[in-house]
Amino acid sequence: MAESSAKEASYSMSFGGESGMREECGLFGVVSTGSWTPENNLSHILHLGLVGLQHRGQESAGMVTTKGGPEDVFITRKAMGLVNAAFSEDDIANLKGTLGIGHVRYSTHGLSEATNIQPFVVESLHGLIAVAHNGELVNAKNLKRKLLKHGVGLSSGSDSELIVQLLTHMPDCGEPNGANWVGRIKKMMEETVASYSLLIMHKDHIWAVRDPYGNRPLCIGKLLPTDAVTGKAPVETDDCEAWLVASESCTFHALGARYVREVLPGEIVEINKNGIFSRCIVPRAESKPPAFCIFEYVYFARPDTVFEGQMVSSVRRRCGRQLAEEWPVDVDLVSTVPESATPAAMEYANALNIPYLEVLCKNRYVGRTFIQPCTRLRRLGVIKKFGPLIDNFFGKKIVLIDDSIVRGNTVTAIVALLKRCGAKEVHIRVASPPVKYPCYMGINIPTVEELIANRVPMDKIAEEFGADSVKYLSLEGLKKAVSEGTKDAAYEVGHCTACLSGEYPVKKLDW
Amino acid sequence: MAESSAKEASYSMSFGGESGMREECGLFGVVSTGSWTPENNLSHILHLGLVGLQHRGQESAGMVTTKGGPEDVFITRKAMGLVNAAFSEDDIANLKGTLGIGHVRYSTHGLSEATNIQPFVVESLHGLIAVAHNGELVNAKNLKRKLLKHGVGLSSGSDSELIVQLLTHMPDCGEPNGANWVGRIKKMMEETVASYSLLIMHKDHIWAVRDPYGNRPLCIGKLLPTDAVTGKAPVETDDCEAWLVASESCTFHALGARYVREVLPGEIVEINKNGIFSRCIVPRAESKPPAFCIFEYVYFARPDTVFEGQMVSSVRRRCGRQLAEEWPVDVDLVSTVPESATPAAMEYANALNIPYLEVLCKNRYVGRTFIQPCTRLRRLGVIKKFGPLIDNFFGKKIVLIDDSIVRGNTVTAIVALLKRCGAKEVHIRVASPPVKYPCYMGINIPTVEELIANRVPMDKIAEEFGADSVKYLSLEGLKKAVSEGTKDAAYEVGHCTACLSGEYPVKKLDW
Amino acid sequence: MAESSAKEASYSMSFGGESGMREECGLFGVVSTGSWTPENNLSHILHLGLVGLQHRGQESAGMVTTKGGPEDVFITRKAMGLVNAAFSEDDIANLKGTLGIGHVRYSTHGLSEATNIQPFVVESLHGLIAVAHNGELVNAKNLKRKLLKHGVGLSSGSDSELIVQLLTHMPDCGEPNGANWVGRIKKMMEETVASYSLLIMHKDHIWAVRDPYGNRPLCIGKLLPTDAVTGKAPVETDDCEAWLVASESCTFHALGARYVREVLPGEIVEINKNGIFSRCIVPRAESKPPAFCIFEYVYFARPDTVFEGQMVSSVRRRCGRQLAEEWPVDVDLVSTVPESATPAAMEYANALNIPYLEVLCKNRYVGRTFIQPCTRLRRLGVIKKFGPLIDNFFGKKIVLIDDSIVRGNTVTAIVALLKRCGAKEVHIRVASPPVKYPCYMGINIPTVEELIANRVPMDKIAEEFGADSVKYLSLEGLKKAVSEGTKDAAYEVGHCTACLSGEYPVKKLDW
Amino acid sequence: MAESSAKEASYSMSFGGESGMREECGLFGVVSTGSWTPENNLSHILHLGLVGLQHRGQESAGMVTTKGGPEDVFITRKAMGLVNAAFSEDDIANLKGTLGIGHVRYSTHGLSEATNIQPFVVESLHGLIAVAHNGELVNAKNLKRKLLKHGVGLSSGSDSELIVQLLTHMPDCGEPNGANWVGRIKKMMEETVASYSLLIMHKDHIWAVRDPYGNRPLCIGKLLPTDAVTGKAPVETDDCEAWLVASESCTFHALGARYVREVLPGEIVEINKNGIFSRCIVPRAESKPPAFCIFEYVYFARPDTVFEGQMVSSVRRRCGRQLAEEWPVDVDLVSTVPESATPAAMEYANALNIPYLEVLCKNRYVGRTFIQPCTRLRRLGVIKKFGPLIDNFFGKKIVLIDDSIVRGNTVTAIVALLKRCGAKEVHIRVASPPVKYPCYMGINIPTVEELIANRVPMDKIAEEFGADSVKYLSLEGLKKAVSEGTKDAAYEVGHCTACLSGEYPVKKLDW
Repeated sequence: MAESSAKEASYSMSFGGESGMREECGLFGVVSTGSWTPENNLSHILHLGLVGLQHRGQESAGMVTTKGGPEDVFITRKAMGLVNAAFSEDDIANLKGTLGIGHVRYSTHGLSEATNIQPFVVESLHGLIAVAHNGELVNAKNLKRKLLKHGVGLSSGSDSELIVQLLTHMPDCGEPNGANWVGRIKKMMEETVASYSLLIMHKDHIWAVRDPYGNRPLCIGKLLPTDAVTGKAPVETDDCEAWLVASESCTFHALGARYVREVLPGEIVEINKNGIFSRCIVPRAESKPPAFCIFEYVYFARPDTVFEGQMVSSVRRRCGRQLAEEWPVDVDLVSTVPESATPAAMEYANALNIPYLEVLCKNRYVGRTFIQPCTRLRRLGVIKKFGPLIDNFFGKKIVLIDDSIVRGNTVTAIVALLKRCGAKEVHIRVASPPVKYPCYMGINIPTVEELIANRVPMDKIAEEFGADSVKYLSLEGLKKAVSEGTKDAAYEVGHCTACLSGEYPVKKLDW
Repeated sequence: MAESSAKEASYSMSFGGESGMREECGLFGVVSTGSWTPENNLSHILHLGLVGLQHRGQESAGMVTTKGGPEDVFITRKAMGLVNAAFSEDDIANLKGTLGIGHVRYSTHGLSEATNIQPFVVESLHGLIAVAHNGELVNAKNLKRKLLKHGVGLSSGSDSELIVQLLTHMPDCGEPNGANWVGRIKKMMEETVASYSLLIMHKDHIWAVRDPYGNRPLCIGKLLPTDAVTGKAPVETDDCEAWLVASESCTFHALGARYVREVLPGEIVEINKNGIFSRCIVPRAESKPPAFCIFEYVYFARPDTVFEGQMVSSVRRRCGRQLAEEWPVDVDLVSTVPESATPAAMEYANALNIPYLEVLCKNRYVGRTFIQPCTRLRRLGVIKKFGPLIDNFFGKKIVLIDDSIVRGNTVTAIVALLKRCGAKEVHIRVASPPVKYPCYMGINIPTVEELIANRVPMDKIAEEFGADSVKYLSLEGLKKAVSEGTKDAAYEVGHCTACLSGEYPVKKLDW
Repeated sequence: MAESSAKEASYSMSFGGESGMREECGLFGVVSTGSWTPENNLSHILHLGLVGLQHRGQESAGMVTTKGGPEDVFITRKAMGLVNAAFSEDDIANLKGTLGIGHVRYSTHGLSEATNIQPFVVESLHGLIAVAHNGELVNAKNLKRKLLKHGVGLSSGSDSELIVQLLTHMPDCGEPNGANWVGRIKKMMEETVASYSLLIMHKDHIWAVRDPYGNRPLCIGKLLPTDAVTGKAPVETDDCEAWLVASESCTFHALGARYVREVLPGEIVEINKNGIFSRCIVPRAESKPPAFCIFEYVYFARPDTVFEGQMVSSVRRRCGRQLAEEWPVDVDLVSTVPESATPAAMEYANALNIPYLEVLCKNRYVGRTFIQPCTRLRRLGVIKKFGPLIDNFFGKKIVLIDDSIVRGNTVTAIVALLKRCGAKEVHIRVASPPVKYPCYMGINIPTVEELIANRVPMDKIAEEFGADSVKYLSLEGLKKAVSEGTKDAAYEVGHCTACLSGEYPVKKLDW
Repeated sequence: MAESSAKEASYSMSFGGESGMREECGLFGVVSTGSWTPENNLSHILHLGLVGLQHRGQESAGMVTTKGGPEDVFITRKAMGLVNAAFSEDDIANLKGTLGIGHVRYSTHGLSEATNIQPFVVESLHGLIAVAHNGELVNAKNLKRKLLKHGVGLSSGSDSELIVQLLTHMPDCGEPNGANWVGRIKKMMEETVASYSLLIMHKDHIWAVRDPYGNRPLCIGKLLPTDAVTGKAPVETDDCEAWLVASESCTFHALGARYVREVLPGEIVEINKNGIFSRCIVPRAESKPPAFCIFEYVYFARPDTVFEGQMVSSVRRRCGRQLAEEWPVDVDLVSTVPESATPAAMEYANALNIPYLEVLCKNRYVGRTFIQPCTRLRRLGVIKKFGPLIDNFFGKKIVLIDDSIVRGNTVTAIVALLKRCGAKEVHIRVASPPVKYPCYMGINIPTVEELIANRVPMDKIAEEFGADSVKYLSLEGLKKAVSEGTKDAAYEVGHCTACLSGEYPVKKLDW
């Protein structure tokens, strides 16, 4: 649980050099099909929607709501920390509205910059607009320079501010009475390349936008009538109380909502009280394939989320099966580094017909802490997150499945723990290829030098971890596991594997 | 400018009528084998020890340390909230000492009473003493009346204060130079009946005490030299850097410590820099058997903890196997209500040779919230904690294993969720008998009227939950699953099953 | 009894050696003449009463209220900081009651010990009692030892806890049905010597108690009907909405209340809904005179307070006149160190017929700060509290009146400031004698070594301050200024001048 | 740019209609003459400089520092509340720099908008700039529309943001390598009319700017060597450790600094390590006179501040003398509503040779509170700020001097208090004319309807207040009192009396 600084205050370092901070984020939006009444106030829905996306960012959260009426009032509430802790009953009550967008964020900066909590709200010539952004602009530096040249002073280091200012600076596209916002958004998309999923709120509607590569996820849901979802039978209704839009579909279920579809790569969807309307699809240059982030499947997304027609958990299971084919091992039991590797581990066990047993118990309360460990604890490493289920593995040969290995610190500490508690052998199988390359499209990956796959040659890595063997799933294996389930996708799919393969869908223009 | 409210302030309601609040708690103590130096400061160990017991109480935490020297200085730090969030780097640094005791607490009172955060520290004629308590005194009301008659003013409603004041009021047992504290503790134990595990810190030692029925757990560990535990081989050493004492052994592993033994029912163990010394064993009246709380196995303890020579997780697995024998069912897949029912569910699946698959994904960030849900969310119930892994169960018959059912709200919401997401059948199997009776020995159980097993006849309960069938493990089955693994226990074992059977080991004397 | 602090937490150092911390405090109590209704809730009165005593203690505040009914419920609220900032609207609303006592406190300890915020509440055999205390027990150490020998464990270092435990430990004085509390209080007073003013709340009444020496102030007021005080004519009514009791009468006016009388030295006054009743007057040993703290007149009390029939401000004026007689000086203007020396300075100017002009402007926002000054600011000293009104004194000879000089740091910095801004001469006249001796009856005075009057010989002191001359009022002069106005006092008066004369009314028994 | 509030969070209402919020503010800037070293860190000076301006705004404070080196790093720290409470030791230490600007603010909005805490920092094409603003733009609405038309999205409702964006949008004025900032500032000044004093920090210098009317104050000081100011003789040195710039000169003394001169109306002064350089003076249109806010003299500024060559306190004294000439009265004593009316009251007494005596004691701890008073306290009004010094006025005729009367609530409550405490007559004399007109240049004055001078005819006003007579200083009298001391001013002076006379120096262009 991330704390902040001495009361109601914040540091910020403004600096001219580096732009575009990397962020892992979650977006949520809601548009009621009815008019505002005290009973039809949707901030509770917005709040709970963000709780369901909390795994995408735990550092800060923000919400903006509006009643969508002619008076153009936006109410904003931002806070450091987890959604549940940061907003009070009163906060929720004060966020009056039938439309709203929200954001959860994990910044990679050491300083928690309260200044940059999203959504970003500005007044424009054509009324207030609020923008929430997930992703990272590959040409942020160019765009920033362009805006600065136009004489815009930029008050935060965030890509969201760039996007907002680009939108307000775009020409009106020849519309006499008021702005042609869809035209502006389209032009902005042509300039910004990737990566972004966006929610843009303006007056009585929200535009849900995904970059032409579809690099970051975004999907649409509908809030069904309560009667429908609290009955004891499967829901059969077309009624809709509100339209929802979210980074991941997993957040719909807590609301009793139904998944409708993904926003397509390049699509601008307008959501208003009358429904969802596809306004435009901006094409990719040179008919390149889409590039949805494959790491969402590997690690980042919640297992009950659906992307491209398949459940994340199912992809992870297939990775486990594939891993068993590629790298079987003769051991007494298969286990997992809880929790995200568990589906892969179970399927690995099934495939090889080896018993699956838990060997590690996760302490769910460790959380983030700013307490520097004493020397002893520093040497012991990160094992405070895990306790050994000794009776399950004493004297036995284990294969431990992990979803991915980045720095390698955790796995080293775990292997040491298991061995000193009596494991006979500890083999490591990783349900994804080695992470070797930086991401500049929104996933927080350490610098190239910190990546274990770049620091230690593959044939020394078992020794490095203290393990009896270490093997990774092949890139082809991962791709196969992913693509097998996309047959049901309603559109062309394609994936960004840059952090694993070094093949970037778009160049970082101002690296 | 001083801030107020949920910071630096607290309400307390003092009331004359009801005494003895029910608490679920965790205790941790540490005694260095060396003298105090800035490097040999044990507050980091104490802090991390409490983090490992956080599952036993998330409301508040407290620590008291001392250097054990002649000047008799105790340093106390108490805070609301989780251990990791509540204590800062500075707090830990300021808690100087080679001895320390700590406490985590979950009170059942609606108001969080900062007044009652443990440990409780008082000055006595023979120096400062600090007491941390897990349990609930069955004769608290009588003891309180006795103290009040002696003219003691009681400043908190806590059993810990009762215990401290009893200790200081006990006669000195004829020792001329200073107090015979062991004699006092023994006399206090004869008066207090049950239930308690206690840590009592005084000058340069800690007494670890368990009531004669052994109702609440308490065990001893040793902190090994860092070299020993950070090597890559099994640890073989008798060296000891510090003695540890904790409610559960699970907390030792994060410290690189080794489990030594349990404190025996009725035992007073003195721990000082020279080692651990059994000072006394207070017998039970009428040679009754011990009465260790069986609910620690069912739900409360962490799976990697060892009680009575067996790992908690292993007991839960045997419960699953036993449940399969008693109540098999013909379904497509077995699943769990994550996370504590998972071992039982896996073993139930193994026993019946039915595939095990996860059907629910837990949102780890829901936590406690004080936001009142809107009407919609109230009707949807508690499902915000869980998301459905639809592809794993759509169109299938499921049996869902739960560890225990108290009020029944959660299971009802889960069944509804699974059914409306396409489950064909949902059967419930509970890895423990119905909870029917109140606990007055330290576990927080709702009033008799709220317990689902008392509200709804057993043959209507499936209907109540909306499930296709609901079956519970028998009491005999549970007892068998527990006792099977206690063959290795170094002492006579026996269990309190009062909340399940109504058979209380001791009467609540002033109910 | 541990309260919380910055982030709901607190340090406390418990130590066996030193007892009885020195405190400057303010007490306030209220008893409605009516029964409790939502409209007749007196916590607002209690809160504002404490605001009026804030000058007596700015570190922490506490309030306890009760409806005085048979169910014996006390509601307590304590917080660090100023009364206005520390309590929220909700806090006040939750403090339901028709009776209440409150306390503001400035502790002399470096650590702000949330544990010791008053009032102190305990449960006794005969119901809850709450105690608020102003003063310092001269025999605290003996009393503590006595209680410890009785086997009482003491959980705070406060005199208030000693008083509460003494009260509950006293024999019942032969009353069969319940406690003879007045008898107990009387016996406690016989044992505790001095100094204390106390408010003791129990069931439906408050006892207001002053030690036999009358060392600390305490007075009674009555809340008049609103109609009476909001009219535009002098108030003439005997109606009473509530009885008030306070350390100083100044706090009554903000409530529209009327001053009634002082609690007499040694008196126990019972206040209940029917009125105020003198229950007992405990005599002084050996017919000694009373010993009301003369420093209350010199510095501590608010100018609009009435003690012994005279207004504090009037005494200060007479001190100025007396000082002019004793130490006239030939200068161009008389001025003051704002604000408490202003009445004395004006009268000094009147007496000598020299113009009075302000030369210093006080920055009211400096307050307490925990920012360590940089080297520059440390060398400049404390002048950040004052700005020079240069045009008023440039090129002129000034005499500056101060009320008292303790350490001498402020006056040194002020003289330097005035001189470098162009004052031709700066003479200092102090409206009280040199402070030379420690107070052990409740006023916070530095150690003997820190007192400037002990560090520097009187004939070197002008040089030390950089002033052209420095003169103090004589002890006789001060006594004369004080006693001149006590002719109207309804009882024998007498004053403690220990810090000035070294003549202590009672010995500190366990120094 | 959203900052945090009660638990790091904030509301903000964005609205399209009304722009330009009214603010009373204080500015402070510092530029070291040396290079940055850990010892030559000027944030302590900046911090203490703001403490000295705290009377100009107590709601929030902000500071920005920079080392002025080539890397262009600005460090910002903003907080709600008083300067002393809001910034910790660590905050100050982290604000590294040899240049810095700071701001204290009192917003007139009900909601404290953390979003708008100044200084406002943005990145521009030519590096970071920070702006702190005191005043209110009379043509804010036009300027805003212009910026919105340019496509700038505005993220706050503040004039500071308008000024920053105007600066960055101005053409470069033909300078090839980098911005001609002085040219831009000049152009911005030509567009913004009034009122503003500004500090603009960029790279290694600060521009201090005052609008052509000189409506808001701004002056320059120099930090002398410590040795110079800590000696015991008048300071004679030309050495300078740092250049200071502040809203009021009163803040220099606490730093041991010397007042140098005012920034002239329309002047742009550049301050860098080499000294202060007048870069430009922007003329007023049509050779209008300056319009320095006369209310700074009447009420707003600290008495020890110097404007136009005269001390504020001296002006207030002259107002008192003038008032005595215009409206003498035959009474027993003259007194003051503490504290700002005291100089006027004393001089009124001197002029009429009537004794001056204090009749009210101010409770310095009342501060702002958010506790709603109960019905009783609401009827009693605001007297909780004052206690009566009854013995000084019982049975006497009083004339009470107030500096100004706005709503009239306070004076009504005071008259009632004095009368019910025994005053025979209470006359009111006000040392300024009636406030009748709104200010739209930076002083927070209630709406026209709330002003007592507009609500009640002048001949009924004594009755309204319950006073025996009420008289105001004439506008001519005030002007005379002010202008008498400006003979020494180094430049043409002139005053804005709009709130008293309705004669506005510039029209509000978009009222």
